[in-house]
Amino acid sequence: MTSDAVTPVLSHVDAHLDESLQRLMGLLRLQSISTDPAFKAECDRTADWLVDELAELGFDAAKHVTPGHPMVVAHDDDNDADEAMHVLFYGHYDVQPVDPLNLWDRDPFDPQVEDTPAGKVIRGRGAADDKGQLMTFVEACRAWKAVHGNLPVKVSMFFEGEEESGSPSLVPYMKAHAEDLKADLALICDTGMFDPETPAITTALRGLAKLELTITGPNKDLHSGMFGGAARNPAHVLAKILADLHDEDGACTLEGFYDGVPELSNSQKAQWENLGFDAEGFLGGVGLSVPAGEKGRSVLEMVWSRPTCEVNGMSSGYTGAGFKTVLPSKAMAKISFRLVGTQDPQAILKALEAHVAARLPADCSYAIHDPEGSPATTMPIENPAFEAARKALSDEWPKPAAFIGSGGSIPIAGYFQNLLDMDAMLIGFGLDDDQIHSPNEKYNLSAYHKGIRSWVRVLDALSKV
Amino acid sequence: MTSDAVTPVLSHVDAHLDESLQRLMGLLRLQSISTDPAFKAECDRTADWLVDELAELGFDAAKHVTPGHPMVVAHDDDNDADEAMHVLFYGHYDVQPVDPLNLWDRDPFDPQVEDTPAGKVIRGRGAADDKGQLMTFVEACRAWKAVHGNLPVKVSMFFEGEEESGSPSLVPYMKAHAEDLKADLALICDTGMFDPETPAITTALRGLAKLELTITGPNKDLHSGMFGGAARNPAHVLAKILADLHDEDGACTLEGFYDGVPELSNSQKAQWENLGFDAEGFLGGVGLSVPAGEKGRSVLEMVWSRPTCEVNGMSSGYTGAGFKTVLPSKAMAKISFRLVGTQDPQAILKALEAHVAARLPADCSYAIHDPEGSPATTMPIENPAFEAARKALSDEWPKPAAFIGSGGSIPIAGYFQNLLDMDAMLIGFGLDDDQIHSPNEKYNLSAYHKGIRSWVRVLDALSKV
Repeated sequence: MTSDAVTPVLSHVDAHLDESLQRLMGLLRLQSISTDPAFKAECDRTADWLVDELAELGFDAAKHVTPGHPMVVAHDDDNDADEAMHVLFYGHYDVQPVDPLNLWDRDPFDPQVEDTPAGKVIRGRGAADDKGQLMTFVEACRAWKAVHGNLPVKVSMFFEGEEESGSPSLVPYMKAHAEDLKADLALICDTGMFDPETPAITTALRGLAKLELTITGPNKDLHSGMFGGAARNPAHVLAKILADLHDEDGACTLEGFYDGVPELSNSQKAQWENLGFDAEGFLGGVGLSVPAGEKGRSVLEMVWSRPTCEVNGMSSGYTGAGFKTVLPSKAMAKISFRLVGTQDPQAILKALEAHVAARLPADCSYAIHDPEGSPATTMPIENPAFEAARKALSDEWPKPAAFIGSGGSIPIAGYFQNLLDMDAMLIGFGLDDDQIHSPNEKYNLSAYHKGIRSWVRVLDALSKV
Repeated sequence: MTSDAVTPVLSHVDAHLDESLQRLMGLLRLQSISTDPAFKAECDRTADWLVDELAELGFDAAKHVTPGHPMVVAHDDDNDADEAMHVLFYGHYDVQPVDPLNLWDRDPFDPQVEDTPAGKVIRGRGAADDKGQLMTFVEACRAWKAVHGNLPVKVSMFFEGEEESGSPSLVPYMKAHAEDLKADLALICDTGMFDPETPAITTALRGLAKLELTITGPNKDLHSGMFGGAARNPAHVLAKILADLHDEDGACTLEGFYDGVPELSNSQKAQWENLGFDAEGFLGGVGLSVPAGEKGRSVLEMVWSRPTCEVNGMSSGYTGAGFKTVLPSKAMAKISFRLVGTQDPQAILKALEAHVAARLPADCSYAIHDPEGSPATTMPIENPAFEAARKALSDEWPKPAAFIGSGGSIPIAGYFQNLLDMDAMLIGFGLDDDQIHSPNEKYNLSAYHKGIRSWVRVLDALSKV
């Protein structure tokens, strides 16, 4: 197959964009919030939707039950070219919760294309994370099949429904079904562009460690008039524990936290500096102006190559309207760490526990719930598939594609490496202003359209590696 | 009138206790939850009930409309002894909400006398706070009148229906009706005993200052993977602000916080030490063992005579089930201060604001909502009415009555002093285990019975001052 094969497929994508869009809208209407048990049936329905869609495309698609939400696995049996590369495409069909609902301008599960000053956007929960992204790949396959009858490489797909709730079933499932999932290369679509004109292949992903910490003082909420002054207030204890997590220069104070954190090579530093990253615009877009991380680091270093320690949630006592002079029994914080290099998630969770224990006054106890961790991942850009894909992306977009880092954690990339001995290539078309995990999430219509076209080109390029 | 007059009145109380109890049960069945608009008509009905009851006793009783719930004011016109002391008795007929309803062992508004290991109790919402307490006074008046035809002192009564919802109409009403309410001494029944054997006159009430503080960083919740490390996290900022509110010895660090905090006199200290307060039991009852307040202070000092600074509520980011790696836009804390002596609530609220401003990093803003403050109140125990009442109470109970402090705030006592230039004497028969504001509120039957008898004695004693 030559690249002449690509042109009619791209034309087909352009001519049938509206149908591709309507299919995505159908997927976005499904309320697959994985973290909330109330939406369990809806997650199941979303898996069924994908199975139907892939079966219609000629894939051998099946829904696999797990202790949590189901997996969807599909193989394209039409392609029998034994010598063709076999890729396994991964995405997730679950979405983040939608609260606070009052900050949405529309029903998060009634998606709509909206005109904005920056162009048309697809508005709705999951539009960018990850339903829009995974559909770019599905629709690229549809166009290839519509035009040529089959795909240029052997394709399997693997969708999970627990990515937004810590993927508890993922590793056991991958271990148990290694044979079924194993391919030459994994493709992962849960990442973004460098900017609206510059596509990217993400080659360095931060890891993640997280836990929920609860401090308990009195055995029930007390009246602050009766007990205030004499009884230990766990909100004060928690505040002290959290305040002590960083020093004045923004560095994390946990014992051994920076063990395994590599310094950026000069060449990588130079490449990143050449990207012309607009730190002011990045922070300005969210109402900030001063980088808040470690002193002396650039913003790109802070989000791509340095570890972090963040409070993601905090709660204690009475938080409703009005005032209740309660002295709380408990105070809770959700804390997470983004990890880089060879930082050990388990060692960091232990260091946090020691930090808490060292600050615990008499009569207080602590409990740690749901501790979890996955290390950072670095991709092998020496694999020729990376350069082939980079060129294909560069053909589609105004500016050449870049190899970039990512602040987020996509543990699946590491699992493909460690559990299935497969390299993983991360390509996605999200933008920084997509408001993923926030109200009014969107995906640019151009990201969807050119995303489908990009995968058409990448599949072709991979068939020639 | 001599104290020979008291004995037949006490006997009358004993002989007619069941009727007194049935009248209280009638009052307890009225669902006068003032904070919930759904119960507005019921509050009104409760005011009518009191007017009828007092009119039947020969009082000139009236219900007075306010923008909120009505006031009930009643004057005893039978007593024409111009030289007699004129007392104004204050209570409140409204009650706290009953949720969580599932933690009640019975319908909160179907009161019942229950046998418990500690004796008979009257179970129901408002039994102790404040319907049972106010009825001890009403029934004492009834017994005096039944036996002697009139009361030993001139008595007026003043009941409000908004105490549990911040008393919004109280100050305007007192100002507008100062003439009608003015008497020689106010009697307030909304307090407790020192212990089940030791009656008390509460002579020091802590004041209260409070506010809600919100720190804003980014203009929306962010993805901690994308922005974590570079964007300012307001939860960290708030933690630091709260952690810095106390030093290592438990003292509040706010500038000028201890201005106006008096040291306890040696005699008062000695009196409190002699009470044999069970600090271990007090803390042990709520699962604590070590007093958490200022180093070197006794537990009684901490809750009666020292100021406090407490976080009553705290919230930021995602606090639901599971995990959301959000970098929050806002972090909120509700903070209150219990005040003593002549501490100035406004100065302390300003000092807190300065404390916040001094710790605010670039790109963060703060907002303060609903700041409110009322100073502490100290009663003039040199007024001979106090010693007379103390002796009368000591005659009724196993142990001598004590002048005690109270950690809570009862702003009405200050209003009598400041608006009507009247001293106020706080006598009540509540106990620490009455579960006021909580499910299964109760009032000991013995507190009700001996409370009525106590007021019989106090009225007699006041007639001789």
